Amino acid sequence: MCRWLAYSGTPVLLEELLFKPAHSLIDQSLHSKLGAETTNGDGFGVGWYGEGETPAVFKSVEPAWNDRNLHELAGHIRSSLVFAHIRASSGTPVQQTNCHPFRHGRWLWMHNGAIAHFHEVKRDLMLAVDPSLYPDVEGSTDSEAFFFLALTMGLEDDPPAAVEGAVGFIEHVGRSHGIDHPIQMTVATSDGSSVWGFRYSSEGKSRSLFYSTRVDTLREQHPEVAVLRQLSDESRVVVSEPLGDLAGAWNEVPESSYGVVQEGQDELHSFTPRPPG
Amino acid sequence: MCRWLAYSGTPVLLEELLFKPAHSLIDQSLHSKLGAETTNGDGFGVGWYGEGETPAVFKSVEPAWNDRNLHELAGHIRSSLVFAHIRASSGTPVQQTNCHPFRHGRWLWMHNGAIAHFHEVKRDLMLAVDPSLYPDVEGSTDSEAFFFLALTMGLEDDPPAAVEGAVGFIEHVGRSHGIDHPIQMTVATSDGSSVWGFRYSSEGKSRSLFYSTRVDTLREQHPEVAVLRQLSDESRVVVSEPLGDLAGAWNEVPESSYGVVQEGQDELHSFTPRPPG
Amino acid sequence: MCRWLAYSGTPVLLEELLFKPAHSLIDQSLHSKLGAETTNGDGFGVGWYGEGETPAVFKSVEPAWNDRNLHELAGHIRSSLVFAHIRASSGTPVQQTNCHPFRHGRWLWMHNGAIAHFHEVKRDLMLAVDPSLYPDVEGSTDSEAFFFLALTMGLEDDPPAAVEGAVGFIEHVGRSHGIDHPIQMTVATSDGSSVWGFRYSSEGKSRSLFYSTRVDTLREQHPEVAVLRQLSDESRVVVSEPLGDLAGAWNEVPESSYGVVQEGQDELHSFTPRPPG
Amino acid sequence: MCRWLAYSGTPVLLEELLFKPAHSLIDQSLHSKLGAETTNGDGFGVGWYGEGETPAVFKSVEPAWNDRNLHELAGHIRSSLVFAHIRASSGTPVQQTNCHPFRHGRWLWMHNGAIAHFHEVKRDLMLAVDPSLYPDVEGSTDSEAFFFLALTMGLEDDPPAAVEGAVGFIEHVGRSHGIDHPIQMTVATSDGSSVWGFRYSSEGKSRSLFYSTRVDTLREQHPEVAVLRQLSDESRVVVSEPLGDLAGAWNEVPESSYGVVQEGQDELHSFTPRPPG
Repeated sequence: MCRWLAYSGTPVLLEELLFKPAHSLIDQSLHSKLGAETTNGDGFGVGWYGEGETPAVFKSVEPAWNDRNLHELAGHIRSSLVFAHIRASSGTPVQQTNCHPFRHGRWLWMHNGAIAHFHEVKRDLMLAVDPSLYPDVEGSTDSEAFFFLALTMGLEDDPPAAVEGAVGFIEHVGRSHGIDHPIQMTVATSDGSSVWGFRYSSEGKSRSLFYSTRVDTLREQHPEVAVLRQLSDESRVVVSEPLGDLAGAWNEVPESSYGVVQEGQDELHSFTPRPPG
Repeated sequence: MCRWLAYSGTPVLLEELLFKPAHSLIDQSLHSKLGAETTNGDGFGVGWYGEGETPAVFKSVEPAWNDRNLHELAGHIRSSLVFAHIRASSGTPVQQTNCHPFRHGRWLWMHNGAIAHFHEVKRDLMLAVDPSLYPDVEGSTDSEAFFFLALTMGLEDDPPAAVEGAVGFIEHVGRSHGIDHPIQMTVATSDGSSVWGFRYSSEGKSRSLFYSTRVDTLREQHPEVAVLRQLSDESRVVVSEPLGDLAGAWNEVPESSYGVVQEGQDELHSFTPRPPG
Repeated sequence: MCRWLAYSGTPVLLEELLFKPAHSLIDQSLHSKLGAETTNGDGFGVGWYGEGETPAVFKSVEPAWNDRNLHELAGHIRSSLVFAHIRASSGTPVQQTNCHPFRHGRWLWMHNGAIAHFHEVKRDLMLAVDPSLYPDVEGSTDSEAFFFLALTMGLEDDPPAAVEGAVGFIEHVGRSHGIDHPIQMTVATSDGSSVWGFRYSSEGKSRSLFYSTRVDTLREQHPEVAVLRQLSDESRVVVSEPLGDLAGAWNEVPESSYGVVQEGQDELHSFTPRPPG
Repeated sequence: MCRWLAYSGTPVLLEELLFKPAHSLIDQSLHSKLGAETTNGDGFGVGWYGEGETPAVFKSVEPAWNDRNLHELAGHIRSSLVFAHIRASSGTPVQQTNCHPFRHGRWLWMHNGAIAHFHEVKRDLMLAVDPSLYPDVEGSTDSEAFFFLALTMGLEDDPPAAVEGAVGFIEHVGRSHGIDHPIQMTVATSDGSSVWGFRYSSEGKSRSLFYSTRVDTLREQHPEVAVLRQLSDESRVVVSEPLGDLAGAWNEVPESSYGVVQEGQDELHSFTPRPPG
């Protein structure tokens, strides 16, 4: 459906993440290998933390591969925490408000996958969004509804618990509509300090998700790779599919699990949706 | 906020309505005289009935005045029932799904004005939309919510009663939130046969609305105006502000009233919102 | 690089050509089988003859596959002569003025392929454009420069001779810059009555081009195919790659040749570039 | 026609220049007071120097006033040398390649005004562009042709002399076509260190141009204005029309003159077009 990338670490120019890798996210917009679709041309978005209280978000409805503004910005903006997403619409309109990442205060959110039969369950899901948040929903995607459910369930306080609650609720609503596999997802979210990455699907066959090996380990294995010498030990990329084929660089996130990229030791845990009630 | 035009009558090229009049709708996009804003550059839309079961809708987020596609289409599409709308956003995003006219089946709808403090009342209004219609709302404007409330209240069976019901409900919800003047509106809607035009505001000072004098009357008064010889007696334009200054051509729709342009005698009636309950 | 379609025959809704065939042009925008690229997402254009002196042209920089306006127009516009083109940019900007078909007066023009090393030869080619036409060039593509060279060499009087002259000139200029294979092309052009389709490349390995079998022949072979009963005997499609796999329906245009779709007998001739001087 | 702003000084967030002033450039996009048009809604562009060898350029075909990406970037990008331009097209297409500022290597260029009857003189002007630069012209405006003429005449070595040469040539060509007043202009150009601002017109009634008073002087006169305490003494804005009404803050650039904002003492000189040959 979509492809995404989350980076945390030594401040880098966005182009180092988006354009320069052999199988970069921009390359994946035309030639995705592991996605449900090879083409992800229904708009894109980039979010980054830097100046100001809240992260910046740049979105466009045009394909990423030939967008000149993206190319310009990528060569001139440097950040230590970056989200990027390329979209393959599953039916909702191609418009900026439907592009990821979505933002609320300091939080960013992006999603690959779908809420099954969203048209049927949309009203039930939206009614569960906190009334004070409801009018802030600007687009029409399942992904943004999912974000607002997670916010309603406490994303800002305990992200894993909130996402487990939101997914449990989505599965509950879906099954009450006779839907076998209500959700398919990889999700990234951040508050500007840590990044949480989730992989889950109701059917147990989730979209792909990978995280990069610790830079100090990679640097020992590949002393010839110059870029590794510029990155801090803890720099980390989480991504829908590997950005290249450097041996030992990419690790699959297991089914039904989530990871946390943070100061200090990163973590990997199992993910269990929590039904309502 | 916005400007709009509805035409019913002898099939004409869209350019006769949109570009050729002295103070055409396209001219109003840059130089509105009677609007709340002189510039209406936040996208536009055109709807027309012709081939097919449902009317066509063409929308763009660019200003109408320099849109080449609009110019092309206007010179090549002929229709006997045309809606056109230029938008000045009151805050919601500039995107095609927020451009008027909105469509549901054979019905078109466009609105000038605003639901006051929409952000505060949006959830209450949306919950009142028929659950089977709720997921079809694609944009985020007050105008589309208003359309779906009218559909919920029977627009397809009795348009005046449905709009009176929707406005009564909006006023009820607004006042329960402490809003003095919950709605400001001119509205046009059509099923492809008749056109209904409404003018109303809670404060009793509504946006301007005009309808053209019967063509047979104008033709007698202005035998020198060639275009009048090509139009049927019953051709009629309803518009936010006059398209020119032909003496006797334009009549203001009175406060709190609505008109019907239809086969046979057109009608003008008073409009009274109907509170819920 | 690109894919295109030209239709001449019984007036049809554009959607019959663009959306309904099994391997329609819109499908080819995502999944081209015979093109140099599988994705053709860098804008599109549609031209058709109908109302007015000149053909209409509708263009967009967004991919065709999810463009709502294209879908709307295709369901409501009927024409007997249609050009449609989906673009895969070979480097020039994605903007409407670079989308095909190009228009001059009653003439439309679209191109698949490229003038090799266009950046190097552009000035020489542009200087050969008739000075009275020069300022009408609006975009920056090789395809539009090619069109204006053909116009300069008499396209409006004798299309095959003009295209042979333009190609001969492009090859002459290219070779004087040390370019081995200066041009790669399929081209369609029309004056609203006939359609000329060309297939040629300096290297003798040209982009694919097909024309449909006469409808009366197809109707005999496939009496069960309903759509064939609605089309006149002479309705004809010329297209970069077949729109489906109906046996006997598609014939490859030979290397270095051109065809004419016209009232009466269609024609197929060999194509020989004519060097300058 | 257009409005523009050039800033050089203490690094500031773009929003300090574009959004926060009382009569900011964004405000001028809807409500220009001194421009030929009150609305400047045909696209915009921002250029800034920072990371990388060349300045960044962000352009959009949508009006500046409601462009969300511009708002995002303005709140997150900080630079010490910024160009911004809002466009009112005088006829050429609304597309990114026609938006200012134009860039060549480290140079930026923006223009308000017009080359009179550009359609008639375009070919003569373009033929005078250095052949090695010719293919780099991407758009179709008079302003970009003017930039490339100035580059041809040595902009990178001696900007005032190059602009005087380009204007002299444009006047020569225009008059040879019987055009009384061939050029109307204010122009800003920069190499990332200095900014040159020009004001001139063949008729001697040039578009308005203002520069801000030295910050140390303003700070003495207005000790209560907080923003002045954050700016270096030499920070300077050159702009089509004043950004506010702070007494003593704005000085008109005289007719037929140019200024240089640079390290050390700024300069103001007379401008005299230099005819060819």
